[in-house]
Amino acid sequence: DVVKDVDETLIERFLSEVDNIQIQENLRELTKVPHMATTAGDEQTVQFMLKRWQDPDSGLDQAWREEYLVYLSFPDPKNPNKVTVVNSSDAVLHTVREKEKPYTDDQKDPAVVQPYAAYSPAGHPKGKLVYANQGKPTDYEELNRTVDLRGTIAITRYGGAGRAAKAINAAPYGVIGVLVYTDPLDINDGLMSDTNETYPHSWYMPPSGVERGSFNTDYGDLLTPYLAAKEETYRIPVKNITGIPPIPIQPIGFEDAYTLICALGGKEVPATWRGGFNCSYNYGGPGFKNTSAFYNSDVKLDIYNYEEVKNSSNVMGIIRGSVEPDRYVIYGNHRDSWVHGAIDPSSGTSVMLELTRVLGRMVKQGKWRPRRSIIFGSWGAEEFGLIGSAEYTEQYYSKLSERTVAYINVDIAVFANATLRASGMPSMQNVIFQAAKQVKAPGLDSTSVYDNWKRYSNRTSPDHGLIPKMGYLTGAGSDYAAFVHYLGITSMDISYTYDRTKTNARIYPAYHTAYDTFDYSSKFIDPGFVSHQAIARTAGNVLIRLADSLVLPLICSDYAEVLESYLNTAVTLYEDQLKAKGISMEPLKRAVTSFRSAATHLDQVIRSSDLANETPLKVRRINDQLMLLDRAFLDPLAFPDKYAFRHVIWASSSAGKPTFPGLADAYDNANPSGQLSDWEKVHYHLSVLSQAIEGAAHTLVDVI
Amino acid sequence: DVVKDVDETLIERFLSEVDNIQIQENLRELTKVPHMATTAGDEQTVQFMLKRWQDPDSGLDQAWREEYLVYLSFPDPKNPNKVTVVNSSDAVLHTVREKEKPYTDDQKDPAVVQPYAAYSPAGHPKGKLVYANQGKPTDYEELNRTVDLRGTIAITRYGGAGRAAKAINAAPYGVIGVLVYTDPLDINDGLMSDTNETYPHSWYMPPSGVERGSFNTDYGDLLTPYLAAKEETYRIPVKNITGIPPIPIQPIGFEDAYTLICALGGKEVPATWRGGFNCSYNYGGPGFKNTSAFYNSDVKLDIYNYEEVKNSSNVMGIIRGSVEPDRYVIYGNHRDSWVHGAIDPSSGTSVMLELTRVLGRMVKQGKWRPRRSIIFGSWGAEEFGLIGSAEYTEQYYSKLSERTVAYINVDIAVFANATLRASGMPSMQNVIFQAAKQVKAPGLDSTSVYDNWKRYSNRTSPDHGLIPKMGYLTGAGSDYAAFVHYLGITSMDISYTYDRTKTNARIYPAYHTAYDTFDYSSKFIDPGFVSHQAIARTAGNVLIRLADSLVLPLICSDYAEVLESYLNTAVTLYEDQLKAKGISMEPLKRAVTSFRSAATHLDQVIRSSDLANETPLKVRRINDQLMLLDRAFLDPLAFPDKYAFRHVIWASSSAGKPTFPGLADAYDNANPSGQLSDWEKVHYHLSVLSQAIEGAAHTLVDVI
Ligand SMILES: [Ca+2]
Ligand SMILES: [Ca+2]
Ligand SMILES: [Zn+2]
Ligand SMILES: [Zn+2]
Ligand SMILES: [Zn+2]
Ligand SMILES: [Zn+2]
Repeated sequence: DVVKDVDETLIERFLSEVDNIQIQENLRELTKVPHMATTAGDEQTVQFMLKRWQDPDSGLDQAWREEYLVYLSFPDPKNPNKVTVVNSSDAVLHTVREKEKPYTDDQKDPAVVQPYAAYSPAGHPKGKLVYANQGKPTDYEELNRTVDLRGTIAITRYGGAGRAAKAINAAPYGVIGVLVYTDPLDINDGLMSDTNETYPHSWYMPPSGVERGSFNTDYGDLLTPYLAAKEETYRIPVKNITGIPPIPIQPIGFEDAYTLICALGGKEVPATWRGGFNCSYNYGGPGFKNTSAFYNSDVKLDIYNYEEVKNSSNVMGIIRGSVEPDRYVIYGNHRDSWVHGAIDPSSGTSVMLELTRVLGRMVKQGKWRPRRSIIFGSWGAEEFGLIGSAEYTEQYYSKLSERTVAYINVDIAVFANATLRASGMPSMQNVIFQAAKQVKAPGLDSTSVYDNWKRYSNRTSPDHGLIPKMGYLTGAGSDYAAFVHYLGITSMDISYTYDRTKTNARIYPAYHTAYDTFDYSSKFIDPGFVSHQAIARTAGNVLIRLADSLVLPLICSDYAEVLESYLNTAVTLYEDQLKAKGISMEPLKRAVTSFRSAATHLDQVIRSSDLANETPLKVRRINDQLMLLDRAFLDPLAFPDKYAFRHVIWASSSAGKPTFPGLADAYDNANPSGQLSDWEKVHYHLSVLSQAIEGAAHTLVDVI
Repeated sequence: DVVKDVDETLIERFLSEVDNIQIQENLRELTKVPHMATTAGDEQTVQFMLKRWQDPDSGLDQAWREEYLVYLSFPDPKNPNKVTVVNSSDAVLHTVREKEKPYTDDQKDPAVVQPYAAYSPAGHPKGKLVYANQGKPTDYEELNRTVDLRGTIAITRYGGAGRAAKAINAAPYGVIGVLVYTDPLDINDGLMSDTNETYPHSWYMPPSGVERGSFNTDYGDLLTPYLAAKEETYRIPVKNITGIPPIPIQPIGFEDAYTLICALGGKEVPATWRGGFNCSYNYGGPGFKNTSAFYNSDVKLDIYNYEEVKNSSNVMGIIRGSVEPDRYVIYGNHRDSWVHGAIDPSSGTSVMLELTRVLGRMVKQGKWRPRRSIIFGSWGAEEFGLIGSAEYTEQYYSKLSERTVAYINVDIAVFANATLRASGMPSMQNVIFQAAKQVKAPGLDSTSVYDNWKRYSNRTSPDHGLIPKMGYLTGAGSDYAAFVHYLGITSMDISYTYDRTKTNARIYPAYHTAYDTFDYSSKFIDPGFVSHQAIARTAGNVLIRLADSLVLPLICSDYAEVLESYLNTAVTLYEDQLKAKGISMEPLKRAVTSFRSAATHLDQVIRSSDLANETPLKVRRINDQLMLLDRAFLDPLAFPDKYAFRHVIWASSSAGKPTFPGLADAYDNANPSGQLSDWEKVHYHLSVLSQAIEGAAHTLVDVI
């Protein structure tokens, strides 16, 4: 069986056994109680995962928990955070709602955590209110031209900048506290009415809904960068933590934001700053207008957040590989939620549990054992900054880096029920397409997930013509981050998502609120759980192909296509100006050419070989080339200012250009500054990039 | 032939074919002219290597050159560096010899480079002379207590501190120029007389002999850290180079040093500062004593060194592997010398050429092809800081890191003809022993190299009893540095060396002088070239075993023994004090225990398996565990202050303790300073170290 290839009959069987009702029941169980990281509800989900993965009839070969002691931030249940409007005699004129309004029993559960900004410092700032749009650097810059920001409280809306950034960008101007809310324009397609428009009447966010979140910039446990957070691990001093709010910040619902913003004085803001409220958005006098009952009053934040090092668990489970047990396909999702987390993350966990049920049963019945090993990870404390997955990669860095074929992340499995959305390394494109072609689109019996996807979102590929448009994993939005950016492991992230002609919502409206419940999901996100089922089938199909194929289904020339496209953009945008500075782009061009030619060659070797009749070591050699391709793009020195970003092709970038992120950022920094040292950084990064791409090409050519 | 193991008959044949006369003739050819890096003589050796490795009857499968544009430093032949004694009316009272005295035609070759300190800045400092012993920080500290060092020229002797350090340590005290010489006590066992004691009467350094050298601290091309030095690669500004002398420095012979030192005024130095001259060693007044003809005179340096980016070549050659071509055993040595370099490096190159002749012939005759690929590297510009090998590892980082089984370095093959000396990773110990047992010690027909070695240098191993004592590759003394410290590749370095009961010489006395010639080597180092032959046989035997063995001959539990010994030393030296600071050594103890248990387990798996009858993928799995073990010890953040040192077990260390280098250095820094932040660095490094050892252990346990 050393030369056994993937078995299409087995895939068909798998697809037919994936059951939407099982997924629905998984979700019901997972969302019984809120399961914020390290709470009693979280422990309940740990036990549930272990029970399922240790089930003698449908469990995995082995399952266990792994614990980390990680730095978390919570509001104080005995001293809830408060936001009030107080007048000059300290009388409270308005109090912001402390908890979301209940519509089902879910919201009444005492374990529902008060909306808060994790990692916001405690404090009691009081000052005149101003409106700072999305809290971007340019927003505060603009605002500061109109209003003296010293001693003010800024109210901002979600979007445009990272959560922590809204406070970090504010502090240099003397702002002493920040509020953040979700504007109905950004989440509800403008709708606001509790009586007939928002949940429970629709999927839209109720006026009291608040998006919780982690207000940090770097991922992983904040006290143990690059080290797994074990009991006696070195921890940096708390004062050395970077990327968290330097001033208190608190999220509130748009019901209260409406009361505050519509009362603001000062000039009217530019059109792009306006949200969906039926009033004028003003900068603030600073403070409220003289026609308002709040005139001359301050806004006061009483934030009692505290930080604590707590024990967070990953639940791990494995299916041992039969032929290449030392090759791992990893499939993961976080387990912790902010509240009930029916969509984030339990939609993904329900899907994962259905996969492990179907695969586990085949294993337990002796009907199947994958060629390679499969590792399932149910990560802890993702909501606080991808902590469980990051600590796992720190602890097992070498082993994972040497042996991992790919990482599949399915966090929110279903944002909406219109179409597939997939992001990943380009070498994964083909296997995702292949899997998506074999799954029927939910509600469309004669259309595949693939065809439906292509209808919603497509591009014309130079190599393949019209194909669905895959995204890239450039940021740190879910647990793939440590795998992509720190380990350089070929990864993907998929979900079912919106029809963008029907909504402009930033994200599904119950995201990180107390309304993200089984009721909400089953009524408004995926009635019948058929989109969940489609994701389970697609992700599982990819998983089986990665685990069972004789030759890894990774196409390196699809990587070449993206590098070429990035190169073209870079040449168009930067070459003239770089030439003028004496910096040549030729090495980068040569590197991309080398890569293309090496990739084409390896593709041909694979296509022209009868690998089932070759020595297993020849197949392994090719598979190692494919598996390790992304590792060749790592350079721990490529991004000196970004924590744990080492993959030179996929880093986050503020430039927002479809090209090499470090080059784009370095260019955007040098071009306005004009400083020689900044142009040298551009040249340095160009060399780093060219060398990484050449280095990757060297790994694809004939091995000697 | 997928399960073919190493063939002992082939090894016997190899051993019998290695010919001392061939080595002698290789050396004669290689040392015809001086071949300093990038000179015409260097190009001659490039052509010679290519001719030999491309020979249709005894060459390799393929050979080629690879070029790098690297930053070198030379004296100006038109303006030779000068060192003079000048009195107050600028009259020259003494001029230091510009070139070494000729005894054979070799020294008369116009291509003999004047002795100089590569990377010393040009300049014309003039000042009173002082004697600064070895130029260590403590030496200048002590000297500064007696003499005002501002504006002085310091004369130092080789030894005790790195070359560049002698100037770097001096500058903060206001010293404006430095001389360095080799004291007869340190190199000649005290002998000095040109008439009957030194070369050509013996191996001892003639009075005019000068050790040249590269005066830099970091290895690799100084302008392109972490980037291969290609044409358009980013280069750091010259002013940003660190670790080179900030003030002019020049090496001189002991003949001139005698004239200068014996005329010095001031107090007499402590006994430990004294060398072999028959006069009192004084600190300097500063300057010369009033009974000297030089009284009140200055010493003046006129240094005309210039820097230039030049094209340096590696010559590469390969034998393709038959079964696992994607596994590399690399064997290398530098090709460039300071002058004729008969010992350094041409003894090693002569040996390498004899290896490739014997192996190449077997390949060309179709009698042999190794299981794994063999790569031979003839590195350029090693003398300027291991440049060729470092650039090679930068260019091919990913490929080499993924596939290299081991690196064998044979630079100076024969320092002297008494005994083997071997340094390397502990996992290489066994294969070196095995090889050394099969080779007869030169001049001792019935004793093996192994037994002879054990007689000269041994230790009692807890696991193996009395065995020869192997050294470790902690520093950056030859081209193994980039492989060990940057790539984490299992490496070794061997040579034949001294009987330490017969000499205390720092190194063989012609080292880096114009006397390191064929004449010198054949008369005084290895008459008959039988020690060269023994090294060729031993290194070649190791090479064949690494390339041909079914299971890699690397023993991971020998690594455990060293970790345990390091741990014991660390506990003895540091634990009490660390406890008092609240820092626990338990994680490190647990890590070493995990490592031992994992290593023992893997050893047992290997011993108890009938691997010739196992699937090739099972053998490959174990071999990958063995091959990648050293990679697991890499952490690019482990040594923030050391360039390209990433292997947490083998870094250079100033503490000089037989334990973990980073821990020892961090402790030695924190203990006197007492600063909390310094103790935190100790704790941090302990966590880095423990995590790396645990991580390595994870790679050795069952793969899933
Ligand atoms: Ca950590
Ligand atoms: Ca370099
Ligand atoms: Zn999530
Ligand atoms: Zn989330
Ligand atoms: Zn050398
Ligand atoms: Zn040398």
